[in-house]
This record gives sequence, C-alpha cells and structure tokens, in this order.
Amino acid sequence: MTLSDYVARQQQRVDEALERWVPPESTEPQSIHKAMRYSLFAGGKRIRPILCLAAAEAVWNSSEGVESVACTLELIHTYSLIHDDLPALDNDDLRRGVPTCHKVFGDAIAILAGDALLTLAFQVLAQLACEPQRKCMLIEELSVAAGTVGGMIGGQVHDLEGEGRPPTAALLESIHRAKTGALLRASVRMGAIFAGADEEQLGALSCYGEHVGLAFQIVDDVLDVEQSSEALGKTAGKDERQKKITFPAVYGLDRSREMAERERLAAHLALRPFGPRAERLRELADLIVRRKA
Amino acid sequence: MTLSDYVARQQQRVDEALERWVPPESTEPQSIHKAMRYSLFAGGKRIRPILCLAAAEAVWNSSEGVESVACTLELIHTYSLIHDDLPALDNDDLRRGVPTCHKVFGDAIAILAGDALLTLAFQVLAQLACEPQRKCMLIEELSVAAGTVGGMIGGQVHDLEGEGRPPTAALLESIHRAKTGALLRASVRMGAIFAGADEEQLGALSCYGEHVGLAFQIVDDVLDVEQSSEALGKTAGKDERQKKITFPAVYGLDRSREMAERERLAAHLALRPFGPRAERLRELADLIVRRKA
Repeated sequence: MTLSDYVARQQQRVDEALERWVPPESTEPQSIHKAMRYSLFAGGKRIRPILCLAAAEAVWNSSEGVESVACTLELIHTYSLIHDDLPALDNDDLRRGVPTCHKVFGDAIAILAGDALLTLAFQVLAQLACEPQRKCMLIEELSVAAGTVGGMIGGQVHDLEGEGRPPTAALLESIHRAKTGALLRASVRMGAIFAGADEEQLGALSCYGEHVGLAFQIVDDVLDVEQSSEALGKTAGKDERQKKITFPAVYGLDRSREMAERERLAAHLALRPFGPRAERLRELADLIVRRKA
Repeated sequence: MTLSDYVARQQQRVDEALERWVPPESTEPQSIHKAMRYSLFAGGKRIRPILCLAAAEAVWNSSEGVESVACTLELIHTYSLIHDDLPALDNDDLRRGVPTCHKVFGDAIAILAGDALLTLAFQVLAQLACEPQRKCMLIEELSVAAGTVGGMIGGQVHDLEGEGRPPTAALLESIHRAKTGALLRASVRMGAIFAGADEEQLGALSCYGEHVGLAFQIVDDVLDVEQSSEALGKTAGKDERQKKITFPAVYGLDRSREMAERERLAAHLALRPFGPRAERLRELADLIVRRKA
C-alpha cells in the first residue's frame, strides 16, 4: 500500500470512530452537536490519530481496536482549534478551508462545543473496551499532555503572552514543546500504551514523538510565511502580523528548514529498535516535514 | 458536631485537596494558575464536594480518602461558572462576591482557565490512589454528567436557546435536570461509587441526588428574584431581565417554594434504607432548601 493510500485508509478509520462516538446532529440540543461535527468533519488531516495508529502498529503489528483511542486526540485537537480561533484569542475566520466554528454558530456555542469535545475525549477513554489499568494510563497521559504544566494549554498561554516580546530561542522552545509538541508526543505514546509497549519501546517512541512534534511546528511556522491562505485552509502570514514567536522569526527561513530536516532524521534514528514495523512512522515523519499545507 | 461545624470541616478538607492538586501560582505559566486559583478559592459553598463526601459516609461510615474525588466536582463546577460568565454567554461581572475571572484576567485567560480546570478534573481522577476499575467508573460518571446529552453542557445550551421562548414546564424541566441536576446527582453518585456502594444503595442515592438537584435549582431561581446581589454574591434579578425560563416564571414564587419543599421531602424518603448514617445527607437537603444565598 502506498503512503497516500495508507493515510487515506487511516483517515477513514478515524472518521468512522468519530462518527460512532459523537452524538448525531439530530440529538438534542441539536445546535451543539452540529457545531461539534462541523469542526470535526471540516477536513482535518488527522495527523495525531494517524500517528497513534502507526505507533500501535510498530509495537503490535496491528492497530485493530485502536481507532477509539486515536479519535480522542482529534477531539482534543479540534477543541483547541475552536477555542484558539475565538475573537478573544487568535480571532481567526478561516480554518481547514471553511469559516471557523464561532463564525458559523456564534461565540457562545463555539465555547461550549470546545468544552464538549474536551469532555467527550475523556468519556470515550473511560468507555473503551480494554483493561481499566490501561484506560487510566491513557487518561492520565492525555490529561497531562492537554494541561497547563508543560502541556497544550500551558503552551497556548505562553504563546499568547509571548506576542510582541523579543523572540528568543528559549522562549520559542518552551512554547512549542508545550503547545503542539505535548499532544503529538502523547499521540504516539497513547498508541503504544494501548498496544502494550514495554518501557524500552515507550521510551523510543516518546523520543520519536518529540522530534516529530518539533519538526511539525517548525514546518507549520515556515508554511505560515511561505504559503497562501488558500493552500493552507487557514489565514496565512498571521504569525508575523501578530508578532508571534516563531522559528522563522528566531532563526530565519533557511535555518528553520535545516532544523526541521534534522528533527526528521532524529525521529528516524529513534525508531531503529523497531526495524520494518516502524516503516509507516518513518514515512509519516517524512510527510510531516515535506508537506506543503 | 453541628451541621455548620460539619460543613466548615468538609469545606476545609475540600480546599486542602484542591490546594494539593492545583499547581501553585508560582508554576509557569503563572497567569493561568493564578486565574484558576482565583476562581476556585473565591469562597464557593462547596455544595457538590460536600454532597460527595456525605454520600460516601452514608455507604461507608467514613469519607477518608474521598477528598480528591470530591474536589473534581468543584473543578468542573468552577470551570462551568467561568465560561458561563463570559461576555459571549451570560456576561456577568460578579461571582462569589468578587469580579468574575474574565473581568480580572481577560477573556482569553478566562477561556483557557476554564479549559484547564476541566482537564485537571480528569487528571485527578486518573491519578487517584484506588483500583483502576473504580477510577474508570468515576471518570465515566463525571464525563457523562458534564457532557451534552442530558448533562451540564446540554443544559447550558438549552438554557441559552430558551431565552425569550414561552416558559413551559417541559422546557424548564429539561433545562434544569441537565444544567445543574446532572452534576449534583453525579456528586452523590461519585461519593457512593468510590465508597463501594452496591446497586441498591447507588439507586437510592441517585434518587436522593435527583431530588436535591431539583430542589437546589428551584431555590436558586427563587433567590434570584427575592435576594439582593450583595446577599447572593452574584448579580440578582438577571433571570427576569434575560427572560430565562425559571421556576418562578412558570409556577410563580409561592408554588415554586412548595415544589422545593416537596423535593426536600422526596430526598429524605429516598434515604430511608440508610438509617442514621445518612443523617448528614438529610441535613444537607434541608440546608439546600432553606438557604438564603
């Protein structure tokens, strides 16, 4: 199977799992379920759930039954986008190529839809069909990665408060390790935990997740400078206007590209113990660095 | 111990547990931890955690070790207040007698502080020192009670969309069963689950929780009409101005008071199987109906 067929197949599995877990639009109160589904099914790339599935395959040679775990990462990611796009935060009108949730449903429903996706992620994990011990590990992993101390919310606060400050390498790193890195790392780790990884495997995959997470953010920052809003499906060039602390702002475009390439190679290196079973994870690291949107 | 000593003692236990679980203000990023603590420690009555502790005592004759479970209910309740008070939702400036979170920290940090409290509630449950099977039951219970289908968020949406519509008894009931009822019911159930309640005990306590939840909301609506903002610590008289669907709006004040009294008696009845162990739960039902703020 080619990589693009593999990605399409995994996206479909993730979407089917989301379809099962998210209440249908006809369930009352309809407006909130419409808003949740609008943002979830607006054509995201599903990078986090796909990393989760591929990590399970590296450990277990299969990702059967991992779809529900994978989709909780998309629930968290989508909630964070909805809240991040609100007028009070980044005030963005365009996301995944369509108007943002609050532009369509209003700010009140957008806030509650984000809250609901966040809450649902933990409900899905609590209701997984697997041993309770493993479920608790997954819930702990996700809640810490999404939280304030080194996690996603902490990164958002740093990002928000960094606007306009002098862009230093230390600040940049602390923002991005938390803001996108923590959830990408958790994506890989949760697939591995569900598949029963031992300590050594989990360590290697955490290392892969950290490098892939950093590569992802560097490339995101570079694309924001280089690409059009149309290509990205979100407003381009915003980082500079908002005086965000980004890799191009600190290191320039050329050095940022080199850094992404170094992270890609480090990610490959971390996968050595797995041999051919980790081939998809290697290809995904390549895809993340070489993507154009 | 008198009831007011008992309540004060339980409040202290809950606050100590919150103190342990919520990162200190000095932890980076400081602003979010300050905002979380500002709203958490603004002098809430801790009704939900106290019900949780008292339910454990009814089952188990002790609530030792239940403090962490109890404090997750306050984390969820406080997040919902912070988001509910935002300009995009109820737009309220006063809560628990002090300016609302967004008035002090701005809308962006208030949104993220709410998200962080919600996320932390699940982290606390995942890290409890008890059997994983029980932790998963508690996480499922809390996520469903806080969610969109019959849960707290669903109730908020109904409430928001009900503004200005004809106040009918059916709409009123569906709003309040979800908006405040679900979390109050879960408070009692989570204490019981942690204490190892059997099916019969859990059924009786769920029934108690439903009646107490309804009584609480009726009294809340009545106090909004009768009391001053100063007495309530939040803006009084808002329901009528916002054309909210409330018990006084549907039934008038006198009949609303009678209904609250009926719910109190039904709550007592539900506790019959427990005998003297449920005395605190009985007193708490009385307190909830007879409170003046």
